Amino acid sequence: MLKDEVRTRTYQMAILNNRHLFEGKIVLDVGCGTGILSMFAVQAGAAHVYAVDCSSIIKQASMIVRDNGMSDRITLIRGKMEDIILPVDTVDVIVSEWMGYFLLYESMLNTVLVARDRYLDPHNGIVFPDKAVMYLCAVEDESTKYERIDFWDNVYGFDMSALKYVALKEPVVDVVDPKLVVTNSVPILNIDLQNCTENDLSFASPFRLRAHRSDRVHSFVAYFECAFTRVRQPLGFSTSPFSKYTHWKQTIFYLNDPISVCEGEEITGTIACRPNRKNARDLDISLDINFDGRYSKIISKHVEYRLR
Amino acid sequence: MLKDEVRTRTYQMAILNNRHLFEGKIVLDVGCGTGILSMFAVQAGAAHVYAVDCSSIIKQASMIVRDNGMSDRITLIRGKMEDIILPVDTVDVIVSEWMGYFLLYESMLNTVLVARDRYLDPHNGIVFPDKAVMYLCAVEDESTKYERIDFWDNVYGFDMSALKYVALKEPVVDVVDPKLVVTNSVPILNIDLQNCTENDLSFASPFRLRAHRSDRVHSFVAYFECAFTRVRQPLGFSTSPFSKYTHWKQTIFYLNDPISVCEGEEITGTIACRPNRKNARDLDISLDINFDGRYSKIISKHVEYRLR
Repeated sequence: MLKDEVRTRTYQMAILNNRHLFEGKIVLDVGCGTGILSMFAVQAGAAHVYAVDCSSIIKQASMIVRDNGMSDRITLIRGKMEDIILPVDTVDVIVSEWMGYFLLYESMLNTVLVARDRYLDPHNGIVFPDKAVMYLCAVEDESTKYERIDFWDNVYGFDMSALKYVALKEPVVDVVDPKLVVTNSVPILNIDLQNCTENDLSFASPFRLRAHRSDRVHSFVAYFECAFTRVRQPLGFSTSPFSKYTHWKQTIFYLNDPISVCEGEEITGTIACRPNRKNARDLDISLDINFDGRYSKIISKHVEYRLR
Repeated sequence: MLKDEVRTRTYQMAILNNRHLFEGKIVLDVGCGTGILSMFAVQAGAAHVYAVDCSSIIKQASMIVRDNGMSDRITLIRGKMEDIILPVDTVDVIVSEWMGYFLLYESMLNTVLVARDRYLDPHNGIVFPDKAVMYLCAVEDESTKYERIDFWDNVYGFDMSALKYVALKEPVVDVVDPKLVVTNSVPILNIDLQNCTENDLSFASPFRLRAHRSDRVHSFVAYFECAFTRVRQPLGFSTSPFSKYTHWKQTIFYLNDPISVCEGEEITGTIACRPNRKNARDLDISLDINFDGRYSKIISKHVEYRLR
């Protein structure tokens, strides 16, 4: 994951170029992994960093912190944020790289919010990064739809369409060619990490997408951006099809029937997302689509997906 | 997995071009997945196929079999081969696509052997395929070794070599460029599926690899071949770096220190493999290496890996 340059470089710049936020401060690194964000914080002058992770990576993180001569400035703690007790009552900064696919899938955001509510200084405390926005757009995607979905119609001469309906319910995480995007992108979720609650992560957002060329729409695509806005020169990164590759790629929701759109026509609808009731790790995502175009008309089409 | 053409086409040819082995026969498909091998067997004239899988895919497989009008010829059974009882005492043919990465990792071979010992006609029964051979060769691989191993020496300015030693123990499943292969390939495991036992899958095999050019060796690479030899025209497929891509790719074992070899020099040693004692799903693999070359000398170097 460290090999995702876009992500790690952005954190590095956000931290090292904003020493005024770290100098002499107590920092909490939620889901520290190898400890790289904790070490950036030390380089930026942090008085002490508490680095928490529930995985066995904490063993290697301890060695790494020692090998880089930072053992006196970083305390590594293995455990769930919800269960452990930090040796301090408040921290000044929470750093975390918590984002999952589709921003929220298997993300550690809930854990960050628990840490924030329990430990962050309520007056001057900062969550780093502090903003995340998810976007939706629509794409022409005949080619990958054929490979992933329509493929099942005829597999070595057999009708395997039973699997097509399984495949259609599964969003696909992959790189989307920016040339395939046929509409604008609209925000569908806006997270303010300083103030949001767990409830905000279940959402239903209306959208209105305008075609900038005439084409066929085979799928909707979601991606996100994260930003550090409480710094001198705000910065962030994007996982858009138009941005540099990240390991999060984009998330693709295929439609069984493509929509023929003409330039200027609008697809409207609602995208909703919430954790699955039985298995909270999974996300239930639905699309309600309306379209009144020259060649296609869709009235309140409801499509369900499950990210697992 | 069906999208792996090399694999599925080979099974299709082996079955459809050998109707004499299937016509009027009782067939058992171990780990049937979507049921494709069972349907090939029906096309080849099987009287009846019992298709067993312990995963929920059996639901879709039932629909697929029904959609292709074969419900009267294929009985789908969800369960572990070890637990279920077939409605027949013997079967004539066992078909199975059981191979995992490094042939044996998370493979279903043990299950195939249980099925064979319990149900296969001891006189004329056939396991399909009936041969599998694993090979070893050595490669020059500075470039991917840097990305995957030496990378950890300096990560954004930090010494993360603690992770290098973790990475070195983990074989990597990926495509190896055939141009990088600097020695011959030698067989390290030869499985006769008609007769082998579970014990044969833990092995220690000596090897002798001869360099066909002067170069540096950064890793050993394993791959396998499977064959149908009890047919009119024997056929099979290979997962060698020199063969067409398959989803099994190759398995790479990196060395911390490269070996400088001159043309004609030989690396000798032993490769051993057995299931991990605590977690039988994992494979413990070790290499013992000897080399007496012009520029490098290695006496009984022991390296351990774990595939998990």
